[in-house]
Amino acid sequence: MNIVLLSGGSGKRLWPLSNDIRSKQFIKIFRTGNGEYESMVQRVYRQIKTVDADATVTIATSKKQLSAIYNQLGEDVGVSVEPCRRDTFPAIALATAYLHDVKGIGLDEPVVVCPVDPYVNDDYFEALKDLGEQALKGEANLVLMGIEPTYPSEKYGYIIPATKAQTSMVDTFREKPDKETAGAYIARGALWNGGVFAYRLRYVLDKAHELIDFTDYADLFDKYGTLTKISFDYAVVEKEPKIQVMRFAGEWKDLGTWNTLTEAMDEPTIGDCVLNDTCENVNVINELNVPVVCMGLKDVIVSASPEGILVSDREQSSYIKPVVDKIEQQIMFAEKSWGSFRVIDINDSSLTIKVTLNPGHRMNYHSHQRRDEIWNVISGEGTVIVDGMEQPVRPGDVITMQAGCRHTIFAVTELKLIEVQLGEDISVQDKQKFELDV
Amino acid sequence: MNIVLLSGGSGKRLWPLSNDIRSKQFIKIFRTGNGEYESMVQRVYRQIKTVDADATVTIATSKKQLSAIYNQLGEDVGVSVEPCRRDTFPAIALATAYLHDVKGIGLDEPVVVCPVDPYVNDDYFEALKDLGEQALKGEANLVLMGIEPTYPSEKYGYIIPATKAQTSMVDTFREKPDKETAGAYIARGALWNGGVFAYRLRYVLDKAHELIDFTDYADLFDKYGTLTKISFDYAVVEKEPKIQVMRFAGEWKDLGTWNTLTEAMDEPTIGDCVLNDTCENVNVINELNVPVVCMGLKDVIVSASPEGILVSDREQSSYIKPVVDKIEQQIMFAEKSWGSFRVIDINDSSLTIKVTLNPGHRMNYHSHQRRDEIWNVISGEGTVIVDGMEQPVRPGDVITMQAGCRHTIFAVTELKLIEVQLGEDISVQDKQKFELDV
Repeated sequence: MNIVLLSGGSGKRLWPLSNDIRSKQFIKIFRTGNGEYESMVQRVYRQIKTVDADATVTIATSKKQLSAIYNQLGEDVGVSVEPCRRDTFPAIALATAYLHDVKGIGLDEPVVVCPVDPYVNDDYFEALKDLGEQALKGEANLVLMGIEPTYPSEKYGYIIPATKAQTSMVDTFREKPDKETAGAYIARGALWNGGVFAYRLRYVLDKAHELIDFTDYADLFDKYGTLTKISFDYAVVEKEPKIQVMRFAGEWKDLGTWNTLTEAMDEPTIGDCVLNDTCENVNVINELNVPVVCMGLKDVIVSASPEGILVSDREQSSYIKPVVDKIEQQIMFAEKSWGSFRVIDINDSSLTIKVTLNPGHRMNYHSHQRRDEIWNVISGEGTVIVDGMEQPVRPGDVITMQAGCRHTIFAVTELKLIEVQLGEDISVQDKQKFELDV
Repeated sequence: MNIVLLSGGSGKRLWPLSNDIRSKQFIKIFRTGNGEYESMVQRVYRQIKTVDADATVTIATSKKQLSAIYNQLGEDVGVSVEPCRRDTFPAIALATAYLHDVKGIGLDEPVVVCPVDPYVNDDYFEALKDLGEQALKGEANLVLMGIEPTYPSEKYGYIIPATKAQTSMVDTFREKPDKETAGAYIARGALWNGGVFAYRLRYVLDKAHELIDFTDYADLFDKYGTLTKISFDYAVVEKEPKIQVMRFAGEWKDLGTWNTLTEAMDEPTIGDCVLNDTCENVNVINELNVPVVCMGLKDVIVSASPEGILVSDREQSSYIKPVVDKIEQQIMFAEKSWGSFRVIDINDSSLTIKVTLNPGHRMNYHSHQRRDEIWNVISGEGTVIVDGMEQPVRPGDVITMQAGCRHTIFAVTELKLIEVQLGEDISVQDKQKFELDV
């Protein structure tokens, strides 16, 4: 199975767990078998590999998410990086060209596209395989998944199939309706459009060449910034007469709000917390290392992260966006391809962060123009390189770096350090990267 | 006016703002005129000085609170330090001996004793003056303040006066009653016993000599640890026939619970927080530097500090003690006589703290047996002394100290540093203090 996972943008709907750089699909809230937690992207990737160990998985995403993807899935996962955001048609065209030109997938092979963040079970991925096999038959140019509605939702578009068969031609599409209209659609046998579809590779590559002037993947990548923003639905689906839909009746949830996200939690709380026995229907997700104590609450969601603390009535939580959009703040936590960092102190002319490097990884060789830095190694073994000079480091070692000085650190074992940044104008933009010849 | 403020012990009733080392009277939640916040102890001290600029104020307290008292009131305040806790009779005897032997207060002068944490207005301190003047007359050996009850409380003891006059002999005392009994007491003209009373110095000093074998203040201080625990009520008040009570009808609140504390706040929230317009009767006290967002809450108290986060229904908040007593945790924040510190990272074999030294102050000259330390100076100017060697420091300077090495830092201006502690067995007990000859 060739599967393209569309990994969407960032946002604050799940603040303080999601923010301008951390998208909801990277929040670790699902219990794995071994008692750890995994994110939506880790869960979906693991489920695909369970159903089809040989699946070619390609994540279509922006550059901003690359660090988090490599951190959570390892660096072997296929990624089609969009140099900038240009909506779904250019993104799917680029991923399709990537599959053909980089991964060597044949023109007649089926490709399945789906969002990276549905909350589903393994039967969903079995259905994706069926979708691909149906596309391969060539009865239609596109085969959509139609999700059996469980309630008259106003949040989804609807697909109206021509027949009640498991696989049917599509009669027509309907935009997100109001509740009453949604009920009427469902009475007519309409299905939810979850943005999941399959095609033979050639079909989308041809469409891409029709609409965009490019030679191959590398060329398309280079001119990506010049492309017009257009959705795949608008550019392709709505204009295509030969479309089929396959019904899917398994569990399918869109965990885009606090309400839906907490409903999918395996247990009411994650992290250090105490609820007294008068709490009712309370969910807590605490990413801090101090306890959250809840007493006498009903229908409340509490979430604490290095970015802030949310305490919300369950219903009200869906109105979070305008409330938190007003908050302007320093990014307090980030996953990088080499590990992660967390801001632990902000002062007038200094910033202190805790850096964790994964074993075998190093950060970029880089310098800053407008700040000095001090590394206090607190655990692990590694090697620092400062202005070309290499030196082993262990806990207790201190490395001071003046502004302009080039530096990196390589972790042999997991390595943690306290980095003190000093300067009048500390900014993540103040960074020059260099090649390292070692 | 000679006033002894009894500064009681620590506790978790106002967790996460109070804890094993920070008592409620040191929490800064009251707005001062200039837009800053002051604690109960700062508020009471300021009020006394407003009513009587020449008042001799002595705080009777334990050694543990000394740092916080000097930090909040300055080092000129009179303090009678109890070497260990021995209940109120020994504490008041010690403070009285201190007033006589150290402060030179005459045997016939009146002394007023009151708890450090009532929430009151200036009229209360005028009433304390009246109490002292009444004691001076010598009509009784003790003159108590009787607070006009505003409701039939089960939390206070009651004083039943002989007459309805402003000043009356006491007929009898009653222990904390149930609600119905409290109502009956009030119908008989009973008053709340707020633990406020005045006497001529000689009276309590004589009582002390009757019950304890000691020569003077220094001797009493030395043998304090051998004294029997006994309350002033039990040792003196209940056995004394010549007691008067003076009525006080002004505002008087005991801010010992989250419910009463938040009612006394000048505005609904303190610190960085956003409440949407569906919140009702919500109080937030946020001591962290990240925002608290509240949505759709009713009758809820939220408090966040470096120790943890409390989210409680207003009513339920009075049952907090058993819930938080189970929590065992590292002290994350403390006020010291020289400034303050906050734990910013906890790792397996390291602890990182942010230290703030007030201008002109220094910490003790000390060493640790089982940990190395690194100081990263991030702001201010000062001088470090390491194993007798003195050196000026400024932002960006790094000082490394091996276990066993003696060290201190003196702040010329306000000075902040990031201290990284490294060792297998980091503990606040691991500290030897030394004299410094400079």
